Amino acid sequence: MSNQVVYNFNAGPAVLPKPVMLKAQEEFVNYRGCGYGLVEESHRSPLFEEVIQAAEANVRKLMGISDDYEVLFLQGGASLQFAMVPMNLMVPGRKIAFCDTGEWSHKAMKEAKILGAGIDLVYDGSTSNFSTIGDPTSWTFQQDAAYAHICSNNTIYGTEYQTYPDTGAVPLVADMSSDIMSRVVDVSRFGLIFAGAQKNIGPAGVTLVIIRRDLAERCPETVPTMLRYSTHIKSKSLFNTPSTFSIYMLRLVTDWMLEQGGVPTVQKLNEIKAARLYAAMDRSGFYRGTCDVACRSKMNVCFRIGAGDEDLEKKFVSEAKAAGLIGLKGHRAVGGLRASIYNAMPLAGIEALTTFMAEFARRNG
Amino acid sequence: MSNQVVYNFNAGPAVLPKPVMLKAQEEFVNYRGCGYGLVEESHRSPLFEEVIQAAEANVRKLMGISDDYEVLFLQGGASLQFAMVPMNLMVPGRKIAFCDTGEWSHKAMKEAKILGAGIDLVYDGSTSNFSTIGDPTSWTFQQDAAYAHICSNNTIYGTEYQTYPDTGAVPLVADMSSDIMSRVVDVSRFGLIFAGAQKNIGPAGVTLVIIRRDLAERCPETVPTMLRYSTHIKSKSLFNTPSTFSIYMLRLVTDWMLEQGGVPTVQKLNEIKAARLYAAMDRSGFYRGTCDVACRSKMNVCFRIGAGDEDLEKKFVSEAKAAGLIGLKGHRAVGGLRASIYNAMPLAGIEALTTFMAEFARRNG
Repeated sequence: MSNQVVYNFNAGPAVLPKPVMLKAQEEFVNYRGCGYGLVEESHRSPLFEEVIQAAEANVRKLMGISDDYEVLFLQGGASLQFAMVPMNLMVPGRKIAFCDTGEWSHKAMKEAKILGAGIDLVYDGSTSNFSTIGDPTSWTFQQDAAYAHICSNNTIYGTEYQTYPDTGAVPLVADMSSDIMSRVVDVSRFGLIFAGAQKNIGPAGVTLVIIRRDLAERCPETVPTMLRYSTHIKSKSLFNTPSTFSIYMLRLVTDWMLEQGGVPTVQKLNEIKAARLYAAMDRSGFYRGTCDVACRSKMNVCFRIGAGDEDLEKKFVSEAKAAGLIGLKGHRAVGGLRASIYNAMPLAGIEALTTFMAEFARRNG
Repeated sequence: MSNQVVYNFNAGPAVLPKPVMLKAQEEFVNYRGCGYGLVEESHRSPLFEEVIQAAEANVRKLMGISDDYEVLFLQGGASLQFAMVPMNLMVPGRKIAFCDTGEWSHKAMKEAKILGAGIDLVYDGSTSNFSTIGDPTSWTFQQDAAYAHICSNNTIYGTEYQTYPDTGAVPLVADMSSDIMSRVVDVSRFGLIFAGAQKNIGPAGVTLVIIRRDLAERCPETVPTMLRYSTHIKSKSLFNTPSTFSIYMLRLVTDWMLEQGGVPTVQKLNEIKAARLYAAMDRSGFYRGTCDVACRSKMNVCFRIGAGDEDLEKKFVSEAKAAGLIGLKGHRAVGGLRASIYNAMPLAGIEALTTFMAEFARRNG
């Protein structure tokens, strides 16, 4: 077993807080003295009920969620939400407004089309190869839209909404899979928020859904039971067996976030981390950010070497790995380099990366 | 932390093999020397690919699955399969044959109805309060049915198919959530088998689907991408981020099963375990099995005290718990007592339970 300190820049599943990993390990085979592991426990037991209730309370506290909203722990990831959202919220004769900032919003739009919805493409990022989100405050939304869909942070292009659009009376649905709880968000501006947990708030296997209660009532009778939000609201996410271990880990991660001081503290650290990494990149004259500076993501820092030197980038990834900095290869759709620096990435990881980047530039510049 | 040996008779999530739990704990924060946990690793990494490929190879080996079948690791449990199966396999104008042996097959039938399918109720267990499955070899199936659905073991009533019906050319779909890999099954007799992992083959969060390849082609274009088997076949269960830790655990459990000698050995032990428990129950004159002896489950042993003495049953559950025998309360739908004795329950657990049962009967008989 290696003693090298490793920093994991994977885009997701991603690094989890070290104290959370150690706690989960410690109680893995004997959960709080019960004699067996929580992973072996019934989802209908008091032991697990305490976990899922604490997880919900943590999420509500961290995000300041009012009683007008339900907090659900589902399965299937954002990809299943791309279908569940229109299945539940589309309205015959009314279009769905989509803001296409690449891959994930595009996939969501595709599912709405499969389900027969009419689309109003409010923002089309493809004209800029998704390198910018433009100015969302300038977008206008037809007020008879069933809902509007955005993806708050794009992991592939490294873009992130700095401000959210004003959709008026149209419910705003946000896929926050890659920046949930990384910054303070006013939940009351949204009709529905969903997020796969595996970047900022837990391991893979659980999908957080925050839904304004009235919206759950739209769902037509023809939608299967498991795909209706109302089913999971009624049974408090225990209609069937959920991914219990994933929810347990989400609870531990959100416990940890509260101990850190909550989302404002975490946001401040995320801002410092991103600022240091972008600054190192910008002043290098060697690395080059790939997207509009105005919408740079604080979660996924995407960059190239020079004008996109693939050989050097390959060398970068492999030498970084040898130095204990892993997961720095860009998404296969765009190539290049990417450092994903979610909540659990410590400042020391950023320092190790910027030090390595400077050395690598010196040796290869 | 208590040093008492605890036996966990939960109906699911359920006991996992001790060596699996200890191995998972050992490598939890530093997976095979990589410097971080597998739960933090990308699902597209070589480390995780090795896991999911080994999991599939293990399942194929343990169940003797031919290349005509695909093996998938999905999310959402059997409850989502209740919808996915008809979404993918129903055919306009052709009925679906259902064999209703209680709760789970009933729920599956309900989803098919929601989706507009016509139902042919081949077996209606409600007339016997689901206390028997009758003789499945005597059932006849209309040969123009789109498919036939059975649930191979009912966790609530403690009934299990001893022989499967002959559906002729009609594809047989089986929900094997509670007895998968507990006994040798000829997969070639089935069109599709699905099973939530959390009873016999892993923790909650992953659903095993075994599907005859030609059946996946039936799915109409109007079904969302995530809900089509063909999507997951094409991407080898990596269309989106799966529940990576659950799949990893399933791999460890199936490794363990292979080390035990595979399904035939496990089946032999399951037969011994069930025989001892039923014998102790039958000879007691105090406990009473709740279902037809001819279709007793080897996984879920359901019984009452006398004619159903609720006070004594409550006492039984609480004293058993104090003695380290947990999870013995019957399902809330039927009450009474239930011992779930899946693959990972050791013979020593059965011995501890039968000893306790005899003592309890002596003290309270």
